[in-house]
Amino acid sequence: MSDVIRFGVSLSKGLLTRFDSLIKEKGYPCRSEAIRDLIRENLIRRQWLIGEEVAGAITLVYDHQKRGLVDHLMDIQHDHHKVIISTQHIHLDHNNCLEVIVVKGKPREVEKLAESLKAMKNVIHSSLTMATTGKDLV
Amino acid sequence: MSDVIRFGVSLSKGLLTRFDSLIKEKGYPCRSEAIRDLIRENLIRRQWLIGEEVAGAITLVYDHQKRGLVDHLMDIQHDHHKVIISTQHIHLDHNNCLEVIVVKGKPREVEKLAESLKAMKNVIHSSLTMATTGKDLV
Amino acid sequence: MSDVIRFGVSLSKGLLTRFDSLIKEKGYPCRSEAIRDLIRENLIRRQWLIGEEVAGAITLVYDHQKRGLVDHLMDIQHDHHKVIISTQHIHLDHNNCLEVIVVKGKPREVEKLAESLKAMKNVIHSSLTMATTGKDLV
Amino acid sequence: MSDVIRFGVSLSKGLLTRFDSLIKEKGYPCRSEAIRDLIRENLIRRQWLIGEEVAGAITLVYDHQKRGLVDHLMDIQHDHHKVIISTQHIHLDHNNCLEVIVVKGKPREVEKLAESLKAMKNVIHSSLTMATTGKDLV
Repeated sequence: MSDVIRFGVSLSKGLLTRFDSLIKEKGYPCRSEAIRDLIRENLIRRQWLIGEEVAGAITLVYDHQKRGLVDHLMDIQHDHHKVIISTQHIHLDHNNCLEVIVVKGKPREVEKLAESLKAMKNVIHSSLTMATTGKDLV
Repeated sequence: MSDVIRFGVSLSKGLLTRFDSLIKEKGYPCRSEAIRDLIRENLIRRQWLIGEEVAGAITLVYDHQKRGLVDHLMDIQHDHHKVIISTQHIHLDHNNCLEVIVVKGKPREVEKLAESLKAMKNVIHSSLTMATTGKDLV
Repeated sequence: MSDVIRFGVSLSKGLLTRFDSLIKEKGYPCRSEAIRDLIRENLIRRQWLIGEEVAGAITLVYDHQKRGLVDHLMDIQHDHHKVIISTQHIHLDHNNCLEVIVVKGKPREVEKLAESLKAMKNVIHSSLTMATTGKDLV
Repeated sequence: MSDVIRFGVSLSKGLLTRFDSLIKEKGYPCRSEAIRDLIRENLIRRQWLIGEEVAGAITLVYDHQKRGLVDHLMDIQHDHHKVIISTQHIHLDHNNCLEVIVVKGKPREVEKLAESLKAMKNVIHSSLTMATTGKDLV
């Protein structure tokens, strides 16, 4: 991707021992990867806060048999089609569906869409996953 | 779904005024739907805590050009194929992919899978959305 | 406090059964109190978001033996004395102190203070509890 | 405190530039301190999860004029006196009080106390700040 830079971090022995045990448990191959993950989590939270372009996913669970619901969900999504990339639909059981809508755009627009879907009757669950387009975060 | 029951909630006028203004802003059709959502959020958090069967989504962002990464991601997913329902893949740009893995199973198994994926080198982002199978939550 | 209003909430039997079991476990005396708590949590989150006057607490853990740290912490607090009401200090062990700073004011000012304290060397932990002045939330 | 160890972290130039800008904004004196904070946040979360001895603070907001409430709050606190170190009380206005209870002990006991207080009628707000005794985290 881009040039790799190396810098030094100083830590007490006690803190490092605890950190090494944590990242071993989580399966990290090395300290650098664990630290990059910690840094990226903070940067992504900030991207959503300050309004940079982001990517994410809205997860919905709803009862598709409720009259009019599927049409209504479709209408709202088309109203926001510019921030929606694609959707994936799973039939959980006879009534319940889980749908994941992958989104990309300005945080406020994506959050507005997630709220509209969540507020609908017979939508059992709706949550917004705040991810990233990955730019400058490799 | 099941029988509908109605019960009374008492509130101070000040608190109700603030609540009404909040749910209007969020687009709820009525107080009942807003309160059902608040209740369900708590119940879903508890389902994950006590280990009931849950559904959810793991969102990954990674650089597919990194040697061996795609194979490695595939291997880990196959090791956990029993909790994976399906995946959706988006090409964000020349290098970066966003992938959503829909999962269903015991919370600990799903969390283990999410952690393994997150710890991998060149996985830029991984987060676990804690949703529900919808049973008894309509 | 103010007049009490009563309104009806409708729920499926399955959802109500689960909710009743959750609030019994948490020790709530009745459904109304549990629902008032859910509503207030949301309203308080929004007060912090939109910038209403709030109250809260900053919890610090630090090593008081580090040269200059106590003076430095004191200086920063005096720079923000308008949002600080009082502090409470506990000697955790020979080196470590836990200090709770009760704050009241605009969210941004309080958050700025919390960040400044957190960023200081030898401050081991700092977190901001988002509470409320209680106005209109009884 | 204990011996200081230094190790290297490798990062892409793009990621480092973003990180440097974030920590400058937050007021960190150097990268090491920012990274130590990220590490400690994760370790503290884990201490609460696995049940190590922790320290923390319970923040309450309540209306002291409600009949019996102050006595009741006192009773519950005495039932849990082993995990309570001290409290700080602020008179927010004519009716509302903010109280911070500093706690130390096993996470489950502290959480149980926080839940009991939160469930009480006329307690407007209760939240638990998960901090640390500071051991091995300097």
